Amino acid sequence: MAFSERIARLKSSLIREILAAAQRPEVMSFAGGLPAEPMLPKVEWADMPASMGQYGMSEGEPALREAIAAEARALGVPCEASQVLIVSGSQQTLDLASKLFIDPGTEVLLEAPTYLAALQAFQLFGADCVTVPLGAEGPDVAALRQRLERHKPAFAYLIPTFQNPSGVRYSEARRDEVAALLDEFGVTLIEDEPYRELVFDAGSATPLVSRLKKASWIYTGTVSKTLLPGLRVGFLIATPDLFPHLLRLKQSADLHTNRIGQWQALQWFGTEAYRGHLAELRDFYRIRRDAMQAQLEEHFADLAEWNVPQGGLFFWLTLKRPVDTRGLLDKALQQNVAFMPGEPFFTDPDANPGHLRLNFSHVAPERLGEGLRHLAAVIREAQAAAQPA
Amino acid sequence: MAFSERIARLKSSLIREILAAAQRPEVMSFAGGLPAEPMLPKVEWADMPASMGQYGMSEGEPALREAIAAEARALGVPCEASQVLIVSGSQQTLDLASKLFIDPGTEVLLEAPTYLAALQAFQLFGADCVTVPLGAEGPDVAALRQRLERHKPAFAYLIPTFQNPSGVRYSEARRDEVAALLDEFGVTLIEDEPYRELVFDAGSATPLVSRLKKASWIYTGTVSKTLLPGLRVGFLIATPDLFPHLLRLKQSADLHTNRIGQWQALQWFGTEAYRGHLAELRDFYRIRRDAMQAQLEEHFADLAEWNVPQGGLFFWLTLKRPVDTRGLLDKALQQNVAFMPGEPFFTDPDANPGHLRLNFSHVAPERLGEGLRHLAAVIREAQAAAQPA
Repeated sequence: MAFSERIARLKSSLIREILAAAQRPEVMSFAGGLPAEPMLPKVEWADMPASMGQYGMSEGEPALREAIAAEARALGVPCEASQVLIVSGSQQTLDLASKLFIDPGTEVLLEAPTYLAALQAFQLFGADCVTVPLGAEGPDVAALRQRLERHKPAFAYLIPTFQNPSGVRYSEARRDEVAALLDEFGVTLIEDEPYRELVFDAGSATPLVSRLKKASWIYTGTVSKTLLPGLRVGFLIATPDLFPHLLRLKQSADLHTNRIGQWQALQWFGTEAYRGHLAELRDFYRIRRDAMQAQLEEHFADLAEWNVPQGGLFFWLTLKRPVDTRGLLDKALQQNVAFMPGEPFFTDPDANPGHLRLNFSHVAPERLGEGLRHLAAVIREAQAAAQPA
Repeated sequence: MAFSERIARLKSSLIREILAAAQRPEVMSFAGGLPAEPMLPKVEWADMPASMGQYGMSEGEPALREAIAAEARALGVPCEASQVLIVSGSQQTLDLASKLFIDPGTEVLLEAPTYLAALQAFQLFGADCVTVPLGAEGPDVAALRQRLERHKPAFAYLIPTFQNPSGVRYSEARRDEVAALLDEFGVTLIEDEPYRELVFDAGSATPLVSRLKKASWIYTGTVSKTLLPGLRVGFLIATPDLFPHLLRLKQSADLHTNRIGQWQALQWFGTEAYRGHLAELRDFYRIRRDAMQAQLEEHFADLAEWNVPQGGLFFWLTLKRPVDTRGLLDKALQQNVAFMPGEPFFTDPDANPGHLRLNFSHVAPERLGEGLRHLAAVIREAQAAAQPA
């Protein structure tokens, strides 16, 4: 069988495999980014018009595009509804952007670490990934300038707000510096913001795209983390030079996004009920974040270092004595614990051992301790085995 | 702005543009393949479990995959639920198959004419399209053998049942001959069957894939023509050598298909209610097909030739005196009539002038005559203008 050359680069989605392995009810999963089941809002369908069953527009439902543009403008993003494209979740934006920009060998600029499903999508299309290290305030600015001087990336893919996997939120100053550099070098920005609304402190910083003066951009969001992932409704907002191409690529990919999900999303966007739901979500996840922090202090204080995330869904642990955490997965699953190894979030996994991404939204606080105790034991065992004799 | 090289091949979806132009309520549209609004079934959502809001499996809902496999087996397609992948409509199958097989310059084999959105998807990825002419019984078998002797297509994309745009249904004998040739040359078959259930006579022929003995295959179907296109739920069934790659490509494209649409589709598949709905659909569309045939006889008998379609949604007209029908579109729209020019259904549009695809499912019978009279007048005017002075 002769497949395309890209199939040689097609990786399995490790996270989806772990999720499948974690289906057993006895498994406690820290692996995915799943919303907590009790926080899935009750939704009503009785008022949905029958016309939502008919084919729709590739761009998406006009009223939903308007609502999304209005919310984005309130965040400082200069845009009109005509720049909004409804997609089947943010993953589709990554697919469309890959098609728009990436030939084999095309350079793209990413944070290190970065979202592994983005990395896989870009690599599937043959991207040559240039990375800039991420610190607690955002990307290393000197390193970013150096990369931009030496490379010509087709775009920079950045997750400035509660980055996946690191949990980093770029500071105000760093946001301005990064935006200025992208403008200076004329590099298109893809800004991925699934976690903006899941914030646990009073901090809020406007998106990078609102700070750009010249560079083209795609801003991408989703209702998967704040409403219902099963709807498969996300959106992108793009500058007018990019939008028509993205629209045609969307037509070629699936004609349009499902209208029933779009209708449901529209019932929430911009409403008091949605604001109330988001406030409840924040309170609920803050409690789970705090519970995880307490249990990590108990079981991981001697094993790892981490920052307490101020939003999002994940803790990012750095082992004091690195081992390849991919090798821990089977043993953890034998103990009925699933987690996400850190290596696949790097373009060079082998050179970056010793991180774990732990989701705190999914497991009930009263069960946490047991799972983390088992996980810590698996790590200690591996470290002992790696010890020189 | 440096885009990928494929963007130079990215065409606008003509049909989506015509649909947009036909949004004006005064426009009578023969252009799309839209189900008739009165035949969209009333659906209930009250019993949907809240868990459908959560992330789901990339493969699709297990019960839906089982139901689809059972229906396919009843058609003679040898398959298990593990070979079924739920997708966001058949268009996504074309995207996934393009990614699986097509590099720039990869040969693929198509009918002439063929479904234009398939053609555009394959060409976007750089396919070199080899075509075989379609007659009333199916592809010309001698031509097909010759193509297979001279070329090495990565796959053959065929629509054997009420082909879009031609309405051709391959005969029993031709199905066997085509399947035998694909087996002989070891060419993978992609069989697209959106219209199987929309049949107006007693004729029924099992899918080509059920007749293959060796070749790999992908069989693709959808609920868009029989239930609700707005759900965006379709499926593919693939041989085990292809399935794992298609699954990973699906993960990379959008993680999984929306679960609410899948749940709704499952409420219908294999039920008495669905069989009843399909019977009503057939009766309704048969009446509209007959009404269109009567009005075509009145307004087009001297202008064009056509076969009466025994299923599907379209008449395919061949003008006795060919003109490029793309040039008629603006004039027709000025007369508030939309239709689909035939040229874009060919890999070489300029060499194939003088066909029109007319949908008969959408326009109410009592309005038909007026629209077809206007359309015939536009054609006569263009033919007169093309007349040598």
